[in-house]
Amino acid sequence: MSTALIILAAGMGTRMNSDLPKVLHQIAGAPLLIHAMKSGAALAPERTVIVTGHGADLVEAAALDWDEDAQFALQSEQLGTAHAVDQARPLLAEYEGDVIVLYGDTPFIQPETLEAMVEARAKHDVVVLGFTAADPGRYGRLVMTGTSLDRIVEFKDATDEERAITLCNSGVICADSATLFSLIDAVGNDNAAGEYYLTDIIGIARSRGLSATAVTCNEAETLGINSRAELAAAEAAWQARARLIAMEDGVTLIAPETVFFAHDTVIGRDSIVEPNVVFGPGVTVESGARIRAFTHLEGCHVSQRASVGPFARLRPGAELAEDVRIGNFVEVKSSYIDEGAKVNHLSYIGDATIGKAANIGAGTITCNYDGVMKHQTEIGPRAFIGSNTMLVAPVKIGRDAMTAAGSVITADVPAEALAMSRAKQEVKPGLAVKLFDILKNKKAKRDKGAV
Amino acid sequence: MSTALIILAAGMGTRMNSDLPKVLHQIAGAPLLIHAMKSGAALAPERTVIVTGHGADLVEAAALDWDEDAQFALQSEQLGTAHAVDQARPLLAEYEGDVIVLYGDTPFIQPETLEAMVEARAKHDVVVLGFTAADPGRYGRLVMTGTSLDRIVEFKDATDEERAITLCNSGVICADSATLFSLIDAVGNDNAAGEYYLTDIIGIARSRGLSATAVTCNEAETLGINSRAELAAAEAAWQARARLIAMEDGVTLIAPETVFFAHDTVIGRDSIVEPNVVFGPGVTVESGARIRAFTHLEGCHVSQRASVGPFARLRPGAELAEDVRIGNFVEVKSSYIDEGAKVNHLSYIGDATIGKAANIGAGTITCNYDGVMKHQTEIGPRAFIGSNTMLVAPVKIGRDAMTAAGSVITADVPAEALAMSRAKQEVKPGLAVKLFDILKNKKAKRDKGAV
Amino acid sequence: MSTALIILAAGMGTRMNSDLPKVLHQIAGAPLLIHAMKSGAALAPERTVIVTGHGADLVEAAALDWDEDAQFALQSEQLGTAHAVDQARPLLAEYEGDVIVLYGDTPFIQPETLEAMVEARAKHDVVVLGFTAADPGRYGRLVMTGTSLDRIVEFKDATDEERAITLCNSGVICADSATLFSLIDAVGNDNAAGEYYLTDIIGIARSRGLSATAVTCNEAETLGINSRAELAAAEAAWQARARLIAMEDGVTLIAPETVFFAHDTVIGRDSIVEPNVVFGPGVTVESGARIRAFTHLEGCHVSQRASVGPFARLRPGAELAEDVRIGNFVEVKSSYIDEGAKVNHLSYIGDATIGKAANIGAGTITCNYDGVMKHQTEIGPRAFIGSNTMLVAPVKIGRDAMTAAGSVITADVPAEALAMSRAKQEVKPGLAVKLFDILKNKKAKRDKGAV
Repeated sequence: MSTALIILAAGMGTRMNSDLPKVLHQIAGAPLLIHAMKSGAALAPERTVIVTGHGADLVEAAALDWDEDAQFALQSEQLGTAHAVDQARPLLAEYEGDVIVLYGDTPFIQPETLEAMVEARAKHDVVVLGFTAADPGRYGRLVMTGTSLDRIVEFKDATDEERAITLCNSGVICADSATLFSLIDAVGNDNAAGEYYLTDIIGIARSRGLSATAVTCNEAETLGINSRAELAAAEAAWQARARLIAMEDGVTLIAPETVFFAHDTVIGRDSIVEPNVVFGPGVTVESGARIRAFTHLEGCHVSQRASVGPFARLRPGAELAEDVRIGNFVEVKSSYIDEGAKVNHLSYIGDATIGKAANIGAGTITCNYDGVMKHQTEIGPRAFIGSNTMLVAPVKIGRDAMTAAGSVITADVPAEALAMSRAKQEVKPGLAVKLFDILKNKKAKRDKGAV
Repeated sequence: MSTALIILAAGMGTRMNSDLPKVLHQIAGAPLLIHAMKSGAALAPERTVIVTGHGADLVEAAALDWDEDAQFALQSEQLGTAHAVDQARPLLAEYEGDVIVLYGDTPFIQPETLEAMVEARAKHDVVVLGFTAADPGRYGRLVMTGTSLDRIVEFKDATDEERAITLCNSGVICADSATLFSLIDAVGNDNAAGEYYLTDIIGIARSRGLSATAVTCNEAETLGINSRAELAAAEAAWQARARLIAMEDGVTLIAPETVFFAHDTVIGRDSIVEPNVVFGPGVTVESGARIRAFTHLEGCHVSQRASVGPFARLRPGAELAEDVRIGNFVEVKSSYIDEGAKVNHLSYIGDATIGKAANIGAGTITCNYDGVMKHQTEIGPRAFIGSNTMLVAPVKIGRDAMTAAGSVITADVPAEALAMSRAKQEVKPGLAVKLFDILKNKKAKRDKGAV
Repeated sequence: MSTALIILAAGMGTRMNSDLPKVLHQIAGAPLLIHAMKSGAALAPERTVIVTGHGADLVEAAALDWDEDAQFALQSEQLGTAHAVDQARPLLAEYEGDVIVLYGDTPFIQPETLEAMVEARAKHDVVVLGFTAADPGRYGRLVMTGTSLDRIVEFKDATDEERAITLCNSGVICADSATLFSLIDAVGNDNAAGEYYLTDIIGIARSRGLSATAVTCNEAETLGINSRAELAAAEAAWQARARLIAMEDGVTLIAPETVFFAHDTVIGRDSIVEPNVVFGPGVTVESGARIRAFTHLEGCHVSQRASVGPFARLRPGAELAEDVRIGNFVEVKSSYIDEGAKVNHLSYIGDATIGKAANIGAGTITCNYDGVMKHQTEIGPRAFIGSNTMLVAPVKIGRDAMTAAGSVITADVPAEALAMSRAKQEVKPGLAVKLFDILKNKKAKRDKGAV
């Protein structure tokens, strides 16, 4: 049976107190919506329809960035969850198969949970995802008879007996497309809020003699985000889990609570991550690497036994081969650093390739930007770049070549050659003391004048 | 009715194990004493008298730094809280009105709490601030009859029945000036410690037929600091509250527990603060700014949509206009960076103004200090400062001007001009390899010699 | 009575999921094994025998690095703890005295605990270290009659009554050498795992009429490490304790949870450590120093009133005298910085001595490496090193000398002299604008060509 997703992502999220649509706030470097889409993607859905509303343009752009086949239905007015799902109807007009309704602000539903729902669908007309709440509070309750779901009762409408139920409604629902929309047709808005509630379809289904059941998951999976404090708490929960998984996978995290992963971080066995490391999206680290304290990585690759930091920043396109060393106050972007090369101190390496075992001196800068375009720097194997060399790109330094400290290199340097651009050192005896005297007098006069 | 504050700040704080007077230890970048003064300041007091003792000079200086009208009474010997308050008597000799006694090591009393005390004073002669303690332990207990406070009983003098009371004494007291000092006159020191206790005035007041009552507040407000561990716990409590408020105000804190605010940090809606950011005092950030990971800010202003960091440091006097970008390993102090200008890498910008949309290359340094005085650098709009340019101040770079990478600029550069100071690049074929051979031989000889 | 240690360190630690032997994983910058050795060292043992197995070479090297007199016994096959201890027998053949068996993966046993065991040994033939477990779970139980230890019963063999015992076995055992090995001779391997268990010696001892007792310690001391998550938890516990001790010793930690100490960090009274500071091994900080946020220190010394950071890195061999200031994006290694000298911005100081009150400008680099050898830089008192000076070592700058900004200094500079190497500044009117036009045209052509 094929599956389609409908992801509700129209809400403004008033409690976020933000101009950004709620589902675009991020956890682990990815919008909430993308987390929901990734959960659903595990089912290899035939179609994914996202119901947009507030900030529809931004939401569409973010969704397409992750899944270029995503489709969108605009809910111009927010009239309730059943109404939201109904907006997807035209896009699913010719679709036959199961539909799962997810929520763009509920990022933690696990793929296995959705798989369990699809499996349960084979035996029941409608499947609802429930969870046993530690504190059921004001959640809607799932009223079951054995494995049969009789109805979902809102807290405010619940009897005392029903309120004692701890199995609660997550809102995630699965049904055959035809069934789903037929049930939605029957949903009314005769309630205090005047909204069309998706949960009503269970009662309607049962009254039509259809069967319904509940699949249950961990309460943590159903966590929805409604404020920035909840967002931060969700981020913390996500990070805690990611850190545990990394440690189980054989990564040493000296102070796990100070390491922040992104949704797609990959990090190899026997790597060591020191305190205070931030992984942005798109980072892979091979085994046996060392990520030192105070390091920031994004969109980069670190190979075996490479060492990065402390106080290093790898930006997108930084590729470090085996045994490379990137030291303190060094920034690398869009560059390939070959085996065993070293960039140990205070350097900016951008749009460059650095050959095997090359040594890049402190203060080296690849001058890659001329104000209009970016240009490439190529440094050959075993080259020795003297401290504070400016490499004015485009420029090539040959293998085994050397640049003298403080040089501005504007033309290619052949292999094995030494290049330098340097004014002769002059020494003026006694002049330092004289200059200081002059400056002190000047200051004294100025200070006097100021009175 | 006017109000005067007496703030007790004479104690040494033995358990702090410090040469610094206890009330000068800081929370959120401000001394404990200043926190207490700020609480009291909400009442717009007519006078503020600070009772000093240990480190009186330092305490006075700190207090005056925040309130130049503060007055000081020296308590040469520490003979108890009533004795301490009594030292303020001469300074309040001609004052008529309410007096509130606060404590310099109790930084969290809320303005509303003090307002409630003043209000209660209208109906009662003496008002004490109490709190319901989760664990009353050895706190003094407030013995009430209805809303009437009968007396304060010290734990060691309390009956079992009194010990069961959970309403405890914070020490904060409010009374009419004449009443307060008249009551203090009657306080004796016939107790184990031989001290004059301010709490005794309640019993004395009641025995004179005066009325007393208690106003209550959250226990957390009454937290006093006695050790560095308590100081750290108080800092943590303060930070936790500040983070929650920031999030409610619409700021995204990706990892709130790693962001440290100062007592006066202001940060706008829809700003994003990444992990590991430290705000020193005097920082304002407008809405929609992004403060990236590993950033340190003090005494600076960040305008809308500006981006700072990662690994950036804004020092006092750094002013960033809209859309400015300050990148990694960049320090800015006493400088105005105009709209859309960029300082992306490894630079020091001090005592400078940078015009709109100027681009400051990697490794740029404003050489603002000649060993005696600081000088200004002015960079015009759209100027392009090449990598590793030294701007020897005082110096001006005109609009649309350019400097070549590696230049030392000592004279002004007109608008639209290119300036450079650069030695010609020379290339010596094969010399790198020869040099290495020489060095290796040298080392081999040296190593041999060492045996 | 003399004491010998046997430390079991042969295990692979499968749950660590690591190629590194378990006992070489670190806490507070030292391998677990070294923590165990340090505990035992408090007894001034006559001999220390480490039983190695997995990764024996690495384990030996690490142990010798800390104690060059350590001896090693290889356990080729892991046949149980009694078998492991038995491997030490040849090395203790001529030794008479007490033996204490410790575990290389149990780093927190306190010296006082071991001293208590040795003391108890004077009255009993065998002494076992026990602890009252909050959750005894599957630990072995110590069956006592009064102060007499009857036997150790494994959880799986225990009766319900025995399982109710909360006094558990830590595995640490003390006995006279002859007694210990004689008891071990009698241990069999007739159990499910087919292993020789050291705990069996208690039953055997008692059956021989020998006496046994238990000394108890805090459960936290007996914590063993079996996974990286447990390692991280142990690190966290260690750090929490170290932070509390530092605060009691009069150090201000603004955010203790963000400060990471090493096993040997020494830090003086009234020093202030700001948030996010990492101490590697070998750091001493004198009183009244300030370690600012985002600082990384290893193998260095910071004297009174010195200030380091934010964003500074002190590497091994960095020695700061009184009142030195090391500022942001500065790296110092193997260098002595004398009283009151300042290195405030973006510098690399390696293999150097800097004289009193010298001022090192932003962007200064000691070019200490020629590709083959490291060389020294000497800077005299009160010297003023201009911004972006390259000091090509070996080189000496005399007292009160000055270098001009942007100079490459390759020859010594006498006292009081000014040195500079600088090309003359040239200005080409209008050229910046022309160049930009050319570049923009080029780009436009290129972009067109790309279509």
